[in-house]
Amino acid sequence: MSARLIGVGVGPGDPELLTLKAIRTLRDADVVAHFAKAGNASHARTIAAGHLRPDVTELPLLYPVTTEIPKDAAAYCDKIAAFYDGCAATVAAHLEAQRSVAVICEGDPLFYGSYMHLHVRLAARYRTEVIAGVTGMSGCWSAAGAPIAQGDDVFTVLPGTLTEDELARRLSDADAAVVMKLGRNLPKVRRALARAERLGAAMYVERGTMVDAVVMRLADKPDDSAPYFAIVLVAGWESRP
Amino acid sequence: MSARLIGVGVGPGDPELLTLKAIRTLRDADVVAHFAKAGNASHARTIAAGHLRPDVTELPLLYPVTTEIPKDAAAYCDKIAAFYDGCAATVAAHLEAQRSVAVICEGDPLFYGSYMHLHVRLAARYRTEVIAGVTGMSGCWSAAGAPIAQGDDVFTVLPGTLTEDELARRLSDADAAVVMKLGRNLPKVRRALARAERLGAAMYVERGTMVDAVVMRLADKPDDSAPYFAIVLVAGWESRP
Repeated sequence: MSARLIGVGVGPGDPELLTLKAIRTLRDADVVAHFAKAGNASHARTIAAGHLRPDVTELPLLYPVTTEIPKDAAAYCDKIAAFYDGCAATVAAHLEAQRSVAVICEGDPLFYGSYMHLHVRLAARYRTEVIAGVTGMSGCWSAAGAPIAQGDDVFTVLPGTLTEDELARRLSDADAAVVMKLGRNLPKVRRALARAERLGAAMYVERGTMVDAVVMRLADKPDDSAPYFAIVLVAGWESRP
Repeated sequence: MSARLIGVGVGPGDPELLTLKAIRTLRDADVVAHFAKAGNASHARTIAAGHLRPDVTELPLLYPVTTEIPKDAAAYCDKIAAFYDGCAATVAAHLEAQRSVAVICEGDPLFYGSYMHLHVRLAARYRTEVIAGVTGMSGCWSAAGAPIAQGDDVFTVLPGTLTEDELARRLSDADAAVVMKLGRNLPKVRRALARAERLGAAMYVERGTMVDAVVMRLADKPDDSAPYFAIVLVAGWESRP
């Protein structure tokens, strides 16, 4: 395999949701890189583990511990930008040595994925390829059996970090919606759904493609505790033929 | 395999973007069904062709020719609803005979897919399973190498059938967007992008994961001819660290 950077989507969690192209790429790549928090296993690596060559060079890219700095602070942005710059330099050194570097990504590489930070830093200088993957949200609505959007529906993805007013306005303005990044935003998301008169239609999904998936109507969820990667689905398609 | 209805996403077009789970399901299913226009090959079947058992029972579900009826007419809605009712009855007969029926779908079964019409008619009565697939839009932004959304971006999918005012308003209101169903809507979509000051950022993608893919800045596209399944991408993520 010639020198190139490859973003490889490994899907939402179930190792069977890897594509043939992702598997072939993992088997052929000289270097397999993955982002992870220091001290934690990379989810993407866990998903892809069965397809890594025993002799492959692994390159963990470990996020700096920045929990002590507020996320909107300039110091945080500087630190995280410096981290991505350093990762890009490390990857570039492998590319300069004519190695292919596959960066494995949960879900789809260019849809809210860390790979994007490498891509924008390196794509102008090196050959790149992106292998699309099944997104986390597809995994969730498939587990929920929730037909999410159809026909002329407007579909939107909202981060739970938006204000309650913005969430309510946007939930009223879309036919179908996914709200991501729940965690401690869940009480606010619930209030916004109620204001938009969409709470009754909202499904709560945790670990969508895992064997221990949780799928329930949000209105039936008795508490407001949710992991950061849980999502809420609001299906559209009101006028079904 | 026991009696059940399975929606199987086969991805955006490249046969290598099938998942292991889709392949296993196609090999095990008693019946493989696919929607197509009468006289046309099913795209989903073409994508999955290499994984169908020679002895599998195939069930083509052929859309009635309704081009003579305007799409918003009650007669069209009645005709298409009757068609889906008939398909559901045919599939139900196989399920009653204890056969498993895999319905292959381009992209992801529950994201703007025809499978949904069977799912909503049969899921209350029969065991169902949905195998998520790579969406057409993921295939397109991967082919374009366009990092579509990141961080707290609001992402939206808009049908090109919306009015110019609605398109312009919604394109101004989202960080990242995909406009589907281009075809003869392209001139209107182009005007709406210009009004929303997003035309410069818009990418035009045709046959995203095929060898003859077309990827270009929409501003550089000299004509307004586009197939119905071409899409426009507007990447978000303005404040990159």
